[in-house]
Amino acid sequence: MQNSITLAHGAGGAIMQQLIKNIMLNRFSGANFEVPLESLDDAGVVDDIVLTTDSYTVNPLFFPGGDIGRMSISGTVNDIAVMGADPIALSSGFVMEEGFHLDDLEKILQSMERTCKEAGVGIITGDTKVMERGAIDKIIINTSGIGKRSETLKRNIDVVKKYRTFNTTWLLDSNVKSGDKIIISGALGDHAIAIMSARGTYGFETDVMSDVAPLNKMMKKALEVGGVVSAKDPTRGGLANLLNEWSAKSRIGIMIYENQIPVRENIKAALGFLGMDVLQLGNEGKVCIAVIPEKADEVLQTLKETEEGKDAVIIGEATNEFDVAALETTVGGKRIIAQPAGDPIPRIC
Amino acid sequence: MQNSITLAHGAGGAIMQQLIKNIMLNRFSGANFEVPLESLDDAGVVDDIVLTTDSYTVNPLFFPGGDIGRMSISGTVNDIAVMGADPIALSSGFVMEEGFHLDDLEKILQSMERTCKEAGVGIITGDTKVMERGAIDKIIINTSGIGKRSETLKRNIDVVKKYRTFNTTWLLDSNVKSGDKIIISGALGDHAIAIMSARGTYGFETDVMSDVAPLNKMMKKALEVGGVVSAKDPTRGGLANLLNEWSAKSRIGIMIYENQIPVRENIKAALGFLGMDVLQLGNEGKVCIAVIPEKADEVLQTLKETEEGKDAVIIGEATNEFDVAALETTVGGKRIIAQPAGDPIPRIC
Repeated sequence: MQNSITLAHGAGGAIMQQLIKNIMLNRFSGANFEVPLESLDDAGVVDDIVLTTDSYTVNPLFFPGGDIGRMSISGTVNDIAVMGADPIALSSGFVMEEGFHLDDLEKILQSMERTCKEAGVGIITGDTKVMERGAIDKIIINTSGIGKRSETLKRNIDVVKKYRTFNTTWLLDSNVKSGDKIIISGALGDHAIAIMSARGTYGFETDVMSDVAPLNKMMKKALEVGGVVSAKDPTRGGLANLLNEWSAKSRIGIMIYENQIPVRENIKAALGFLGMDVLQLGNEGKVCIAVIPEKADEVLQTLKETEEGKDAVIIGEATNEFDVAALETTVGGKRIIAQPAGDPIPRIC
Repeated sequence: MQNSITLAHGAGGAIMQQLIKNIMLNRFSGANFEVPLESLDDAGVVDDIVLTTDSYTVNPLFFPGGDIGRMSISGTVNDIAVMGADPIALSSGFVMEEGFHLDDLEKILQSMERTCKEAGVGIITGDTKVMERGAIDKIIINTSGIGKRSETLKRNIDVVKKYRTFNTTWLLDSNVKSGDKIIISGALGDHAIAIMSARGTYGFETDVMSDVAPLNKMMKKALEVGGVVSAKDPTRGGLANLLNEWSAKSRIGIMIYENQIPVRENIKAALGFLGMDVLQLGNEGKVCIAVIPEKADEVLQTLKETEEGKDAVIIGEATNEFDVAALETTVGGKRIIAQPAGDPIPRIC
């Protein structure tokens, strides 16, 4: 390991996970927690409560389809929702640069307010710090949040138990079993391309909008059907990182079909231009759901009836035939989906 | 209000409170919460759970008696403890500058680990972000945490109820009543002077150490005696800000006796040199406790038997005779303790 922090250490892929595993986890392992830190799930759990935290450093602060405020609420709400919990309260910690414009702060707060209403969750505590000019780039926001195990989650798990043994009470990364169908709730790549377009550094502009959105209500509808065993949002490191985490923690193979992965035409064009792989890009308004095969079509249909999930599609399934994440390409070839070293775009969230 | 953020907006005093009241609270008011955001207490509450958050930007990262790691655990644990709750789990969000030394990160993590053990609490979830060189000064840490209402807190409140009506179930800023004794758990000013000494910018060095420490175990001992109605830690804005918050939210006068306020001799010397008021300086290992008069001596005695509270002293009492925070000076004069505009020292925490 190098002796100083690189951008890749914060990019959500293999290099960040090495940092966390090598120098953080051994200090804070909590053997007596149901979902300990070392499971590296989307949130930690104590009794019926999940706790999650995210610091948002996105640059620029405002971009097509969203801003740091909308992102700071959505990202934390989604980390709670993909555990299967109902978000019940958020905290908000602002660190601002001396000289930051109050007009911009107001716009961010308005956006947070709207997103809180959309998600049906409130901020109950906060913190405000200011650093001297030059010591921080404008503003970063930490949003932490708590969620509760709901009756809906319990009923969802009862449905799973009708078909197989299932020992956990949350939607963990380690829950995926052979035969489970993998659903993505919509098109990939929008957020990353919107951010790059807003930066203008890649010499192109598109009319693409970020997908940043709170997904707890959509997740709840899926749980009401029942049969969901795991869920995770493909943020930093993208779907490639997500599938690798599921595969490693569930000790299972996952086969994904390239021709099933929804990607908008203008995103495809930008990706071709940039030479980037859509599977490695971070999204902020999508969730990947693993469902028992007996319930997959019904869950898919329910997702498609929601605004956030109207483009949902089954993109693959888990299998015992191998133990990695793999892609069947459009032309029929098969390749391993490598865990990305990091997200190719820094400060995407 | 100016149209951009100043250092005072993050300094814990009147200017920060104006910012929060004017442009934040109206958006996120949570009327259906027992302790809503607008109460501006040390933590928010949902059912039996308290949630609190703090971002730590202290400069320098390492100082006599502590470091950003010890501070990030202690500050959040203390915000939970002064609500009367038991801290049960923490989250940790790191934002680091590209190029930050891994050796320094390890030292910080070691310190966090030690402080977690001291407090008896674990980190169950985290987040790691990296910003490009120059976009952030080294590292900031957000620690959020949850605490639970304990049987000890319930018994403490039962003791209060033997002597007067008491309608809240937490140690809120609005709980102080005429006659309540005000206890400070130890000497003031150590942390601020240690930070200034470590910076070396004021042209003096002292052998003073920061008081940064987790106080949850000491708080619990006070609650075991019973009769505690409120508690708060005099961090940014110091004891002056704390007393003003109690006075305003409890609609009560508070009289403090200058000759009772514990300040070490070397701190007094440094303050004289700097022309600073110890009441306005932030502390990181002290708590101010309001106790019903019938139990004040017993609570004081119990605090004095702990290491963290061995210099505890009764410094004053609440009164109906006026409705501000006031100081009786050593020479017998009386003056209002003004709410400080902000902490005189930026990035103290």
